[in-house]
Amino acid sequence: MTDKKPLSTQQVVGHNTPEDCWIVVDNHVWDVTDFLEEHPGGSAIILKYAGRDATKAYSEVHTPSVLKSNLPSDKYMGVLDESTIDDEWTKQPPSENPQVVLENEKPPLHTLINSHDFEFVASKTASKKAWAFYHSAATDLITRDANKSCFDRIWFRPRVLRNVRSVEPKTTMLGVDCSFPLFVSPSAMAKLIHPDGECAIARACASKGIMQGVSNNSSYTVDELTSAAPSASFFFQLYVNRDREKSAALLRQCSANPNIKAIFVTVDAAWPGKREADERVKADESLSVPMAPSTASNDKKGGGLGRVMAGFIDPGLTWEDLAWVRKHTHLPVCLKGVMSADDAMLAMQAGLDGILLSNHGGRNLDTSPPSIITLLELHKRCPEVFDRMEVYVDSGIRRGTDILKAVSLGATAVGMGRSMLFATNYGQEGVEHLIDIMRDELETAMRNTGITTLDEAGPHLVHTGDVDHLVPDSARHPYAFKTAKSRRNLGFSKL
Amino acid sequence: MTDKKPLSTQQVVGHNTPEDCWIVVDNHVWDVTDFLEEHPGGSAIILKYAGRDATKAYSEVHTPSVLKSNLPSDKYMGVLDESTIDDEWTKQPPSENPQVVLENEKPPLHTLINSHDFEFVASKTASKKAWAFYHSAATDLITRDANKSCFDRIWFRPRVLRNVRSVEPKTTMLGVDCSFPLFVSPSAMAKLIHPDGECAIARACASKGIMQGVSNNSSYTVDELTSAAPSASFFFQLYVNRDREKSAALLRQCSANPNIKAIFVTVDAAWPGKREADERVKADESLSVPMAPSTASNDKKGGGLGRVMAGFIDPGLTWEDLAWVRKHTHLPVCLKGVMSADDAMLAMQAGLDGILLSNHGGRNLDTSPPSIITLLELHKRCPEVFDRMEVYVDSGIRRGTDILKAVSLGATAVGMGRSMLFATNYGQEGVEHLIDIMRDELETAMRNTGITTLDEAGPHLVHTGDVDHLVPDSARHPYAFKTAKSRRNLGFSKL
Amino acid sequence: MTDKKPLSTQQVVGHNTPEDCWIVVDNHVWDVTDFLEEHPGGSAIILKYAGRDATKAYSEVHTPSVLKSNLPSDKYMGVLDESTIDDEWTKQPPSENPQVVLENEKPPLHTLINSHDFEFVASKTASKKAWAFYHSAATDLITRDANKSCFDRIWFRPRVLRNVRSVEPKTTMLGVDCSFPLFVSPSAMAKLIHPDGECAIARACASKGIMQGVSNNSSYTVDELTSAAPSASFFFQLYVNRDREKSAALLRQCSANPNIKAIFVTVDAAWPGKREADERVKADESLSVPMAPSTASNDKKGGGLGRVMAGFIDPGLTWEDLAWVRKHTHLPVCLKGVMSADDAMLAMQAGLDGILLSNHGGRNLDTSPPSIITLLELHKRCPEVFDRMEVYVDSGIRRGTDILKAVSLGATAVGMGRSMLFATNYGQEGVEHLIDIMRDELETAMRNTGITTLDEAGPHLVHTGDVDHLVPDSARHPYAFKTAKSRRNLGFSKL
Amino acid sequence: MTDKKPLSTQQVVGHNTPEDCWIVVDNHVWDVTDFLEEHPGGSAIILKYAGRDATKAYSEVHTPSVLKSNLPSDKYMGVLDESTIDDEWTKQPPSENPQVVLENEKPPLHTLINSHDFEFVASKTASKKAWAFYHSAATDLITRDANKSCFDRIWFRPRVLRNVRSVEPKTTMLGVDCSFPLFVSPSAMAKLIHPDGECAIARACASKGIMQGVSNNSSYTVDELTSAAPSASFFFQLYVNRDREKSAALLRQCSANPNIKAIFVTVDAAWPGKREADERVKADESLSVPMAPSTASNDKKGGGLGRVMAGFIDPGLTWEDLAWVRKHTHLPVCLKGVMSADDAMLAMQAGLDGILLSNHGGRNLDTSPPSIITLLELHKRCPEVFDRMEVYVDSGIRRGTDILKAVSLGATAVGMGRSMLFATNYGQEGVEHLIDIMRDELETAMRNTGITTLDEAGPHLVHTGDVDHLVPDSARHPYAFKTAKSRRNLGFSKL
Repeated sequence: MTDKKPLSTQQVVGHNTPEDCWIVVDNHVWDVTDFLEEHPGGSAIILKYAGRDATKAYSEVHTPSVLKSNLPSDKYMGVLDESTIDDEWTKQPPSENPQVVLENEKPPLHTLINSHDFEFVASKTASKKAWAFYHSAATDLITRDANKSCFDRIWFRPRVLRNVRSVEPKTTMLGVDCSFPLFVSPSAMAKLIHPDGECAIARACASKGIMQGVSNNSSYTVDELTSAAPSASFFFQLYVNRDREKSAALLRQCSANPNIKAIFVTVDAAWPGKREADERVKADESLSVPMAPSTASNDKKGGGLGRVMAGFIDPGLTWEDLAWVRKHTHLPVCLKGVMSADDAMLAMQAGLDGILLSNHGGRNLDTSPPSIITLLELHKRCPEVFDRMEVYVDSGIRRGTDILKAVSLGATAVGMGRSMLFATNYGQEGVEHLIDIMRDELETAMRNTGITTLDEAGPHLVHTGDVDHLVPDSARHPYAFKTAKSRRNLGFSKL
Repeated sequence: MTDKKPLSTQQVVGHNTPEDCWIVVDNHVWDVTDFLEEHPGGSAIILKYAGRDATKAYSEVHTPSVLKSNLPSDKYMGVLDESTIDDEWTKQPPSENPQVVLENEKPPLHTLINSHDFEFVASKTASKKAWAFYHSAATDLITRDANKSCFDRIWFRPRVLRNVRSVEPKTTMLGVDCSFPLFVSPSAMAKLIHPDGECAIARACASKGIMQGVSNNSSYTVDELTSAAPSASFFFQLYVNRDREKSAALLRQCSANPNIKAIFVTVDAAWPGKREADERVKADESLSVPMAPSTASNDKKGGGLGRVMAGFIDPGLTWEDLAWVRKHTHLPVCLKGVMSADDAMLAMQAGLDGILLSNHGGRNLDTSPPSIITLLELHKRCPEVFDRMEVYVDSGIRRGTDILKAVSLGATAVGMGRSMLFATNYGQEGVEHLIDIMRDELETAMRNTGITTLDEAGPHLVHTGDVDHLVPDSARHPYAFKTAKSRRNLGFSKL
Repeated sequence: MTDKKPLSTQQVVGHNTPEDCWIVVDNHVWDVTDFLEEHPGGSAIILKYAGRDATKAYSEVHTPSVLKSNLPSDKYMGVLDESTIDDEWTKQPPSENPQVVLENEKPPLHTLINSHDFEFVASKTASKKAWAFYHSAATDLITRDANKSCFDRIWFRPRVLRNVRSVEPKTTMLGVDCSFPLFVSPSAMAKLIHPDGECAIARACASKGIMQGVSNNSSYTVDELTSAAPSASFFFQLYVNRDREKSAALLRQCSANPNIKAIFVTVDAAWPGKREADERVKADESLSVPMAPSTASNDKKGGGLGRVMAGFIDPGLTWEDLAWVRKHTHLPVCLKGVMSADDAMLAMQAGLDGILLSNHGGRNLDTSPPSIITLLELHKRCPEVFDRMEVYVDSGIRRGTDILKAVSLGATAVGMGRSMLFATNYGQEGVEHLIDIMRDELETAMRNTGITTLDEAGPHLVHTGDVDHLVPDSARHPYAFKTAKSRRNLGFSKL
Repeated sequence: MTDKKPLSTQQVVGHNTPEDCWIVVDNHVWDVTDFLEEHPGGSAIILKYAGRDATKAYSEVHTPSVLKSNLPSDKYMGVLDESTIDDEWTKQPPSENPQVVLENEKPPLHTLINSHDFEFVASKTASKKAWAFYHSAATDLITRDANKSCFDRIWFRPRVLRNVRSVEPKTTMLGVDCSFPLFVSPSAMAKLIHPDGECAIARACASKGIMQGVSNNSSYTVDELTSAAPSASFFFQLYVNRDREKSAALLRQCSANPNIKAIFVTVDAAWPGKREADERVKADESLSVPMAPSTASNDKKGGGLGRVMAGFIDPGLTWEDLAWVRKHTHLPVCLKGVMSADDAMLAMQAGLDGILLSNHGGRNLDTSPPSIITLLELHKRCPEVFDRMEVYVDSGIRRGTDILKAVSLGATAVGMGRSMLFATNYGQEGVEHLIDIMRDELETAMRNTGITTLDEAGPHLVHTGDVDHLVPDSARHPYAFKTAKSRRNLGFSKL
């Protein structure tokens, strides 16, 4: 072509910006900076190869002579010195998926195609404190991880040759119509990741037809949320205050709000869990929430938002207090955080309207049982509860297949907390996109197991042989024990 | 030798090309560029040490003085400065195995010695889109990986002191003689990796005496394939079109082609699975296939070829439609994609000729059961099907031992899909080489378990104790459940 | 701002010390060296971003103009050349947690928030030999790791809606009041990591109300320890000397010391284990301990302190010798190192006061059973021992949840050895901090399982289904065996 | 000290050889090259810190002024510029253990302290081909790895307070006294790693009192071995030749050699396994062995020594041929390679003297059962064999604990093959050192489980609950199957 001096890959690689963009095609180096804006296919595709070898991509769409005939000859920089090609050079350019997210730079929303992507992007772009607060869980993260892995160890038993042309996943939850059996689990302080916070979630839920659980520690009040999304349906998650009157006022406020359909009293957080990633990052001490007397602070234990915001919660709450809750609201009352068949039975006896099997996303007590295992325990030990209460599940839901497994095993609906916060990173649109993804995954799973409505879902759809040994049989341990009490007092008082 | 200035390893290491090749022997540096072509052992072995220390390799075949007496003295570059030797320098040169494949450079075919090698080479040399389409699987890849790992958890019970001088793995499949119990599972669009595509596979199968399953989305028509390989035997994999008449025409075309021996109706893909790696790479929108009304496109979900090419498939297909299929062909009709004993029994009752236990290579519904587990389920729950239909297995076959395990557990033959596509990377010869490898591995496994024909294979040859807990016992879940339906309507309509 | 030449990230990154500190805010580079000491928030927060981009942290607390209006203009170094930003640059600065500890630099004590942190810091800051001696375990480390992982495979069965406002974990151990059921397991030579050694531990235990087990190979004598911590309660861990009289003297000395409350005779170290990490690091041959005739040495096997310090221990110790021990002390006598129900029963029959289930932290015999498995074996095979002796557990305790699991399964108290040595790295304060952490974790676990005193702890609180197959049922192996003896003598003497 | 210009770490780091050695102590840089030979503690300890910071090591043994007062002032190079300290600098120097072996440089023998070390050193220093041949195993290496991991999943049940002052692990094998129950498993071509090859092993075995199994493919003849080690006891491993007369001659030769005590007929290698690492490295085609008609070659499958050297072996060998073996020798005859209880029973019925449970180190058929699992199968299904034959185990033995587990479960002795080859890397001394290590580990395990002779070893010493599900119960598979044969012929001949 010309007799310019060969260029080394090192000389080429630096010209990799929109202002200075070289590419290599068939070992010829071209300066295409001025051409970027004119490219019919857009500049993005060229910039992907800025400072790199674009031969393969180029050849897929162009004949060899296009460059030569379209660019002025002074844009030809010379031939590539092939002896300088090394491993680095031959590596593929970054792909389009969010796995290559730069710090602090959110990829376009449409490139996120599952709940993991939202988590990944948040890990790179949320503030350090928001990330620490949202993704952290109790101590060694065993329950957090088992929440998901136990879903993965439950196998489908798919049926074929069913007519699955149209699929309809709609359901009701506490009498409220839901477009499919998903709700947003109450999660605190969504404003940490986006100024619209829970308002963005509310608008997305309203537009997509699912319920939002509003955290007692929401960044916005229930009234602000109902203003933001007047057609939305909510349930309110209550942390009972040591000062009962404050909670009573909140219950009255919720009950007066026609968008609030139920009260979920949290019972799996009698005491704040130890979330170490959260503790290790200092909290902004000006942070507070409108519906609880909570203010962030840093103390000698660290900066755990999950802990310091929980100071007002009454660890003395008992079954008797549920009557008190009933007194202040006409709404259905459910428990959030049941972790055993024993308490499910008590909840049934207490006349509750529903229970949410939850271990707080593994955030409170490490090695508390995965929720899906508790759901199996209910079937083994007290299947009658399913006839008397609605049963919900959260903690570990990441896929449409997880929703279908939980529903097949008796859940009315399932909740997602963390993932929804990560989606809030993109505001209302992000949450809508995630809800769409989950629904699409659920419908695909329904069709590919051979069902078209959730009424057809049932335990026959799954095989749980890989986790059955994790499910307790009775209220007692199978070995012979004396009680702890009798073991004391062996006569050492002589000392 | 001379008193030239010592050379550092850094000075030597750059002379590593055929045009400029130095090697070091016993710490003396020689320029052997001109000698490369004369070397009796070929230049490749020298080039392996270009710019490196060749002492060890040299000493294995030559006496120390050979270099000195054969090269002009001006080719002696000097002594190596030993103080410059570092870790990098002392590393071994790349070995001959494909693990060191450079991007875009296929190693010689004979250096590939197992199915994994073909996959590895394809990962480096196939186009990004071909790789994404072929290797991807549904969502979290759990089924894809379990397909293989469940084979690995089944142990042989080898017998010794049997006369295994001659081994004969031949069998028949649907009455067609097969040199051994392997077939090519139907897989779409082989042209993405090689211009000969399915024609290369057809020729290889014909020459090696095994059947090829032709995908409805093949890059070539069945007539083109029979022209390419006139002696080959095929079965045709049908995706039933929403427009039945189109499928009927295809069935008639296949039935008129004497090389087509059977129809396999796919039933494990009622709805396209979510293959995320495939979605993340843009598809070439000019792509289409000749036997289906499919054209590639990119939409808001991504560029998943597996999804967009499947738009014409009827998700409303039911058992009743099989009678319709029978009406349009005299050929044996089998189902591809049975995943439960329940459907195997229905298939038997429907009078089908065979069933292919398959989860579509894990590509459609994640956490659908590994095929080998479904095969065990058949034995546990409906062993009578083996007397009435042929049973095939695909998904996860990578080794001759996998073939022998499946056959021991009742399979007539097994299929390989992805691996065959990866072998097509080398055209007909590649596929032939892979078939040879699989047969050799199978024969070795037969001999080392003490059998010489497949009639001797049986369940006594394997121990499945490590996976038995994954096999369902009955159509029902072992715990007591109410149906999902009764769980609704708990009286929340009051809200 | 000015027209200075743009600075590359490479030019900025080197100015990262207190003596030369630049930071970047909004792409403007400032020299803040002189400002460090005046910063109202302290210099540490600025130094975290020395030579880096501080925009995010800065913006959280300051308005954009603060820098410009507070710093002399000559401290403005110029604009950052954004084209030089690379992955390295965009990485977050090290966080405050100890995971980023530099070699030889202990982070502030309050930033350590769990027992793992102490181990991590010790791995970086203890002398090579101290680390090797403390963290090493027998051969392939299987028991060491299983000690912990078996705890992690036991799940809680948490109860909700219990009044857990006040929690009281106090207990007694051998009649001695303990603030909670933890003690310091006897571990040798704490002086290797801190000059105060066991004295630091003693003072911390006294102040926190728990017992300290004093190793026979302690760096300080029992009298020195009681001087250091006059209010402390100890038990003494005895290695019985081949020269019985020496041990008798030690027993008399301990019995005369009112702070010593019991004697624990070690029985799980009949022979020193092979701790390879310890062997691989040379020992300081001047090392000795005051209460045993042990001196460090290096021999052909290596430099294992655990081995060479054990030379005086009598491998001939039997059950009969326990009577001899009793003769020389009026104190309760316990066994440390019981690893089977069989020996627990013998200990009960021998009238011992307690047994410590221990495998010496996995340091002696690899693949000896995890202590928590032995505890389960006791329940399965000899639950009566819990009525007759106190049962303790050590080996693998790292979390408050581990304490609660052991107590729920019948342990009176649990011991921590290695972790306490790692905490001694910070002297008395370090040990106190670790004890506080463990107590806090225990109380959190109690509350979140719904109990407020240890009397309520019991086997109903845990599910052991994931480890039950590891627990022996009887003294015999389930398969039919002849004894080893009869297998010999098959008539080969003819040879 | 002086006002020389500060030196950067980069300036120091290059002075790291015996000819040019600087060290840094308390941030002062000294040239200690001339001092190396005078150092009372030897030069090695100083060279460890050549070009590095030696402060810590120095301070452990010297007062600060020693350097200054002992070195001429011109050896003081200046102060270290602390701003140049980076991560690289602060890293510890390589420790003394073999993990830091440089390529091609064997560490001193005494620094190797377990069998893994020998393997590691061989991986770095053996020729590429020797390493490939020795360490390779069949296809996916599943059996090779399970051989070891199944030992690791068997737990001891250690007993305490037994008198273990003196331990005596001696035993007999086929009437031959052995100092402990270990023998060298026959392995081919030890000369590949050391010129003394099997002669080195023979001398070591003789001096340590254990038997050596001589491979049919030994680099030396049995007569050469008996000359090399006149007091040694051998057994001879026979591959039966397709040409029976050649094997007969070999049998007569062995039977005439008084050092040969038994014949082990290999039965687990009817056909050579596919050892891919071996195939991938070219073989030296001049290689041959003296007692078999084997010559190395490279063919289209690769360069697998294990395969090409096996060409003469008769795959038609059956139980009938054992009578023929008996005819040509008066020696005890054992089988090497039994992998099932079924064949163990046949061996007993055939009147054999012993069986070696072996899967050829996982080298022949991948997913053949781990030997220790086969040993358990014998106990479950045919415990009577232990009264009638000696039972040996090899494949996976790496630790003294493995020996004790096998003996406790009924093995008379165990063999080590690969590890012994790796030890031959150091000639006779290496093998002796490894034998010493294994004996020491065995004695330690015996003592710490509470036994002093092998007669006390028995199944009560181990718990196998973690692997029991891998052990077959009967000759049949538990599910209901038809035979493979009946499954064919379903009427497809119509095609």
